[in-house]
Amino acid sequence: MNTYAASLSDIRDAAQRIVGHAHRPPVFTSTALDELAGCQLFFKCENFQKIGAFKFRGAMNAIACLSEEEAQRGGVTHSSGNHAQAVALAAKLRGISATIVMPTSAPAVKKRAVLGYGATVVDCAPTLEARETTTADVIARTGATLVHAYDNDNVIAGQGTVGLELLDQVANLDAIVTPVGGGGLLAGVALATHYLHPEIDIHAAEPTGADDAYRSIQSGERVRTHSPNTIADGLLTTLGERNWPVVRDLVKQVHLVDDDQIRAAMRLIWERMKLVVEPSAATPLAVALSADFQRLGHQRVALVLTGGNLDLDPMFVA
Amino acid sequence: MNTYAASLSDIRDAAQRIVGHAHRPPVFTSTALDELAGCQLFFKCENFQKIGAFKFRGAMNAIACLSEEEAQRGGVTHSSGNHAQAVALAAKLRGISATIVMPTSAPAVKKRAVLGYGATVVDCAPTLEARETTTADVIARTGATLVHAYDNDNVIAGQGTVGLELLDQVANLDAIVTPVGGGGLLAGVALATHYLHPEIDIHAAEPTGADDAYRSIQSGERVRTHSPNTIADGLLTTLGERNWPVVRDLVKQVHLVDDDQIRAAMRLIWERMKLVVEPSAATPLAVALSADFQRLGHQRVALVLTGGNLDLDPMFVA
Repeated sequence: MNTYAASLSDIRDAAQRIVGHAHRPPVFTSTALDELAGCQLFFKCENFQKIGAFKFRGAMNAIACLSEEEAQRGGVTHSSGNHAQAVALAAKLRGISATIVMPTSAPAVKKRAVLGYGATVVDCAPTLEARETTTADVIARTGATLVHAYDNDNVIAGQGTVGLELLDQVANLDAIVTPVGGGGLLAGVALATHYLHPEIDIHAAEPTGADDAYRSIQSGERVRTHSPNTIADGLLTTLGERNWPVVRDLVKQVHLVDDDQIRAAMRLIWERMKLVVEPSAATPLAVALSADFQRLGHQRVALVLTGGNLDLDPMFVA
Repeated sequence: MNTYAASLSDIRDAAQRIVGHAHRPPVFTSTALDELAGCQLFFKCENFQKIGAFKFRGAMNAIACLSEEEAQRGGVTHSSGNHAQAVALAAKLRGISATIVMPTSAPAVKKRAVLGYGATVVDCAPTLEARETTTADVIARTGATLVHAYDNDNVIAGQGTVGLELLDQVANLDAIVTPVGGGGLLAGVALATHYLHPEIDIHAAEPTGADDAYRSIQSGERVRTHSPNTIADGLLTTLGERNWPVVRDLVKQVHLVDDDQIRAAMRLIWERMKLVVEPSAATPLAVALSADFQRLGHQRVALVLTGGNLDLDPMFVA
């Protein structure tokens, strides 16, 4: 029997663990965007989530799952993005220590945010190898538990709560589109939907410049390394081992969108919905606006607006 | 007896007229901004309103108030901003014609939006005199009814529905802060609050570079002309005749905020709340973050985020 990363109970337990800590963001609609897409769109606003991205859910669940003994030794992760802040805040809320390994290339503002939550930041060279070696060093030294950004069952169960909420907030969906980077959100949402509403199609949105999930599906084998190049900086990671079977079995299609499509979709969300979303979060709308997707004829489509963290200097610094 | 621009019945009637056309935007909160302000803030999200600003309320009410005979001759206004789109859309929804007199200096994107609603655009030179003369010409030619952007009782009653909703959505407020330009929103909200909850203090936020309301209060006489200079491009107009008695009698204080304060408040709303708001909409938060306001000791303060229409090219055009 095939055992996926999370059962329905795992996801429901995660929902219980994060309630009171995580927000339950609303689902927004837009007549203007419905007209452009030719169907009804439902936007799950995870840009309103704590730390400004869905990542808080998985991190909070993983930190909450630590035993008392593990908790005393703290949590550790490596991330230059939203997961870094997510683990830092989750650890703060549980009152335990967290160490975040961040590449020296990470923006100072992100480092400050992590430090602001009381976490320890350990610098490393900006390569995956350096990140993993440095993280292993921290673990050897402190006995901290690794909270991997996506290749972690508790994290996947936590991200699955986005699916639980969506299914509760919107009835009679035909399809759900989430971005795919490492695949934690995609797998979590796909599993929740598989258990509760298997009739709903799950689609993934992936940047053309980071098409490892697309190629994995094409070849039937998980692509393990790639050299991404896209403005969707939340989707640079490679599909995780624990997420791959879920994506392979339960995701209807991975759709590629290029940076121009992503930028145009992002601008539409800012202009028409007045929401600040980061490039990664705009990839599902880019898919929904594509002719390929529209040919599928879905009528009620949910899109996950995954986050709203990006550098606003271009708007504010003359 | 002093007769203000709108009675409670007028505002309640306006609410009945616009229901089903206007949105009822949610009230958002932000723990991060509460900490900065030292009180609980409640943000009324009129950036989510139709056409992206509260202006739709007043325009819709004024257009709905036209008799059948007046309606056949259409509506007319002069505006380079949100009111132009508001009248155009309101007329479209009632199925009548609208003529919008716009200065040649108005951005092409705003003209396109007005044309997109099926209104006629008449160009004029970028002076108040040219706008008024050209509008008078349209009226003489077509018999259209003027829907002034703020010096109009039906418009003021329409903007007052923001107050009705706020008072319904948030209990036990100590204060409400709205921006002041021509004063339609400020007067409408002040009147609704005066009738229903006179114990709540009404405060106005005004740019230092467009301080006519402030100076009117100081001198006890309405300032009729000024030469504004501020990034808050929705607040360039001069306090209206119909709004002045309301502002004089019912507004606790007009607070001045400079462009740096406005820009900083706007950035906080974008970064922490993930909301796209225009500079004018950020003025109430700029007030709430000022030492002068904080000294007043208000605990529960509502701020009206008036709109979210601005040029996003700096973010999207490299």
